[in-house]
Amino acid sequence: MREAYHVELERLADELAGMCSMVADAMEIATRSLLETDLGLAEQVIGDDVKVDEARSACEEHAYSLIALQAPVATDLRILLAAIHAAESLERMGDLALHVAKAARRRHPQPVLPDEVRGYFSEMGRVAVSLARQCEQVILSKDIEQARSLEDADDEMDDLHRHLFSVIMDRNWPHGVAAAVDVTLLGRFYERFADHAVSVGKRMVFVVTGRMPGSGADEV
Amino acid sequence: MREAYHVELERLADELAGMCSMVADAMEIATRSLLETDLGLAEQVIGDDVKVDEARSACEEHAYSLIALQAPVATDLRILLAAIHAAESLERMGDLALHVAKAARRRHPQPVLPDEVRGYFSEMGRVAVSLARQCEQVILSKDIEQARSLEDADDEMDDLHRHLFSVIMDRNWPHGVAAAVDVTLLGRFYERFADHAVSVGKRMVFVVTGRMPGSGADEV
Repeated sequence: MREAYHVELERLADELAGMCSMVADAMEIATRSLLETDLGLAEQVIGDDVKVDEARSACEEHAYSLIALQAPVATDLRILLAAIHAAESLERMGDLALHVAKAARRRHPQPVLPDEVRGYFSEMGRVAVSLARQCEQVILSKDIEQARSLEDADDEMDDLHRHLFSVIMDRNWPHGVAAAVDVTLLGRFYERFADHAVSVGKRMVFVVTGRMPGSGADEV
Repeated sequence: MREAYHVELERLADELAGMCSMVADAMEIATRSLLETDLGLAEQVIGDDVKVDEARSACEEHAYSLIALQAPVATDLRILLAAIHAAESLERMGDLALHVAKAARRRHPQPVLPDEVRGYFSEMGRVAVSLARQCEQVILSKDIEQARSLEDADDEMDDLHRHLFSVIMDRNWPHGVAAAVDVTLLGRFYERFADHAVSVGKRMVFVVTGRMPGSGADEV
């Protein structure tokens, strides 16, 4: 019974790794659709979002059935609940990639981004995708160090986001209010994506090790 | 045992009702701090946010211990998992009220809102607070009709949000980019608060009735 349970838990972790990969791809393609004003790429992300939603339902059902069938307690129960929370955050990350793609589609064939901020979004996209891929690696490699580096990447995102705001708020911003509004919301989508990724990464450490990262993690 | 379980479930529902009331108060006071440029009210919301976080932890622990001790299956298990999700959304609603209060504090003693949009925020605040209070009523009254009216209020929020954007995007917006950015983010906070409230309301119907609202709800 315990053996079967651990096999099932590994399968659930693999499903979550699959979701990480899906939302990393979604954000990568959404960012390209934004930077390259590519409607086809935007449509691809928009069409694929339902797969992320389905994967989340599947993860949740899998965790539910493990709780119902195995009646786990203590750490085993918390691991399954962490998996459910992680799946919810991953679905939300997919939604945020979807919002980016929809912004690219809404303004097409005009580019959404003025030239001055393209570099910021290129970087924020890189950091966001890397965070989602690191979450996947945490699961696949059970590498806790990887989870610790998520916080650094999130700090990098916060810095980029802050600098982006100083560019928009500059008195000499020549692109008008509509462009500023678009850039503001898009910046927020990337920042929220990163926040969720950090939360997923921490929960995944717990799912694969049974211990929460944090102050006590040095002892692991 | 079943009797004790249902008493505990009622207690958990009451804790969630308490969280609804807390986040409704937080959004009400945050909106006043914004409209009245009142630093004291903003500080109150900022200082009280930790109580929402603690209430969420308490709800989650309560649900965990019910799952661990009672090993519920089927609907009973899903009810407890819905309660955990609802508590998470309620914590997030508290965070969004906190963001509103922080915006009011950041610009103090200047008002954040240009006169043209004050009316929108007054209305969005009213709708947001009413949504959170309706969630509380769903729990206390076990009234499913109440949950159905949540969708109407959410539509009202979406309309307000859309109109707000048309005001900001107007070529004659005279308040510059910085004000537009503030108003954009604030509008988003209210819209997200409402989205979370609808999700909480649906889950609460499930917690108090064991049935999900939706297409099949007419049969209830």
